[in-house]
Amino acid sequence: MREFDWIDRYLRPLTLGFEGSFNLKDDTALLQAPQGLLVTTDTMVSGIHFIGNEPPSLIARKLMRVNLSDLAASGATPHAYTLNLSLPGECDESWMQAFTSGLAEDQQLYALHLVGGDTTLSPQALVLTITAFGIPGTHGVKHRNRATPHQDIWVTGTLGDAALGLKCAHGALTGPSGHWLNRYRLPEPRLLAAHMLASYIQASIDISDGLMADMRHICAASNVGAAIARNTLPLHEDTQRLLNELPEYWPSIVAAGDDYELLFTARPKDAENIRLAAKKLPHAVTRIGRTTAEANSLHLLDDSGKPIALLREGYVHRG
Amino acid sequence: MREFDWIDRYLRPLTLGFEGSFNLKDDTALLQAPQGLLVTTDTMVSGIHFIGNEPPSLIARKLMRVNLSDLAASGATPHAYTLNLSLPGECDESWMQAFTSGLAEDQQLYALHLVGGDTTLSPQALVLTITAFGIPGTHGVKHRNRATPHQDIWVTGTLGDAALGLKCAHGALTGPSGHWLNRYRLPEPRLLAAHMLASYIQASIDISDGLMADMRHICAASNVGAAIARNTLPLHEDTQRLLNELPEYWPSIVAAGDDYELLFTARPKDAENIRLAAKKLPHAVTRIGRTTAEANSLHLLDDSGKPIALLREGYVHRG
Repeated sequence: MREFDWIDRYLRPLTLGFEGSFNLKDDTALLQAPQGLLVTTDTMVSGIHFIGNEPPSLIARKLMRVNLSDLAASGATPHAYTLNLSLPGECDESWMQAFTSGLAEDQQLYALHLVGGDTTLSPQALVLTITAFGIPGTHGVKHRNRATPHQDIWVTGTLGDAALGLKCAHGALTGPSGHWLNRYRLPEPRLLAAHMLASYIQASIDISDGLMADMRHICAASNVGAAIARNTLPLHEDTQRLLNELPEYWPSIVAAGDDYELLFTARPKDAENIRLAAKKLPHAVTRIGRTTAEANSLHLLDDSGKPIALLREGYVHRG
Repeated sequence: MREFDWIDRYLRPLTLGFEGSFNLKDDTALLQAPQGLLVTTDTMVSGIHFIGNEPPSLIARKLMRVNLSDLAASGATPHAYTLNLSLPGECDESWMQAFTSGLAEDQQLYALHLVGGDTTLSPQALVLTITAFGIPGTHGVKHRNRATPHQDIWVTGTLGDAALGLKCAHGALTGPSGHWLNRYRLPEPRLLAAHMLASYIQASIDISDGLMADMRHICAASNVGAAIARNTLPLHEDTQRLLNELPEYWPSIVAAGDDYELLFTARPKDAENIRLAAKKLPHAVTRIGRTTAEANSLHLLDDSGKPIALLREGYVHRG
């Protein structure tokens, strides 16, 4: 079949000549990591995590970015990755060319390179895995379990865009601009924010299951509660306008996944420093609530400070 | 869905409490590797790499072992692994329990532990990936490209068993014992041989695509040729008996994959030391030929030293 040809033409160039990749000519690669190596892995399946008709370069970049988002949450700097592709017969050479061009583009943006992988056939679905390696930040590895009561809760960027973008992709919603769809297809791993705020971040997670679900992950790991004020949630102007007219979209904002924003806690005394550092970032960093001493008690509060009843907090399972 | 429950019940115990796994409670794990870390990854797909009706514990162990076989070829000691499972709905909790019991068993045998992974749904096929991490051996990382002309070619164990085992699994052949089927389902990564012979091994690969195909990988990487004497190939007694009666099975021995034996070159002066070291191993280590100066010229020789015409050298692609 095509495996060896494709390695030569499309995969080997992605090693950027990095020595430890051994030019993809061995079955193993060598990673140097005197300070330790953070590893994360995500699998995306067509029909579950993406539709399948997206441009292959965008599928590649999303696969890369959901992994980089995990590295950002742990405070790591991207270093290298391996790639496992299980492809049905209809993924031909032009598909592979487009897919790897997306990887090449994001390698440039995020300064990492391919070191190995495996390409196989798949009877039906595309099943794509990246395992990404990162260097721990100088402020150490960030975890979910470092929240204590009475810390501030912060979030980067805006919320709910990807959830609305998914509805656009399915034709169930039309956005006033391409913003939602773009954010669904191409998340922005918050590596720079994680780096610049590293000395203030206590507990940290990236929002993949939804704001409330991922806040619950922090609460469960840290044995704290949380109260989030809905009127403080950062929203894109398209989203704000939609919610003004159709407030029934609120659950999509707080309980749907794929935001890939950074959700973290910080000491209240660091709030001003965080705001100052955030001014240098190309996106907002917004304080949205407080942790509490009431373990695992998670509330979304309305304008009057009363808890809003939620039917669900988010994807219990990402598929 | 079941992802979080299954992490608690079946996957977290596989971390063996290893600190860097963070109890599978973060999206990243931390690997310490002051001497560098070898990484390898293999994907297995039901209907392509296995039938699907095998006992889940054997599927798990084969997935683990094909990765460990790559580590053996590079001279590494297993350390840790990540696990990506894309499972159709019919893989229920009892499947998961059996699958992870197989992993637990092989973790004990090979002294490694789980550090992370991702579990997703799959619309149809089982798509299973392990990414394995190893510590480089004290004699350095072994490669395919270290063969020079006039080295001996050696192979561990016996050849062709797994190819015949696959025919048994499909009902196309019946073995006189369970040996072939067992070898197909449960390869033996040659970690101990790689360790004990490390000071003699020059070029090295594990046989996954077939003896001739993998010998060609060494030849291509090293820019040498090779001549292999068919009458020196190590065969199990069941296989020898089969070939005596039905020599048409020869191509399955030399050109089919899944042996997961170690194929390596060594200096002729080390032959006696290799034989001595091999006496301590539970399997044969057999000299089967010589490398030549004629780049990429690969021959299988008959009893009179004449090249045997081969229709194919092995799986061009493992699927």
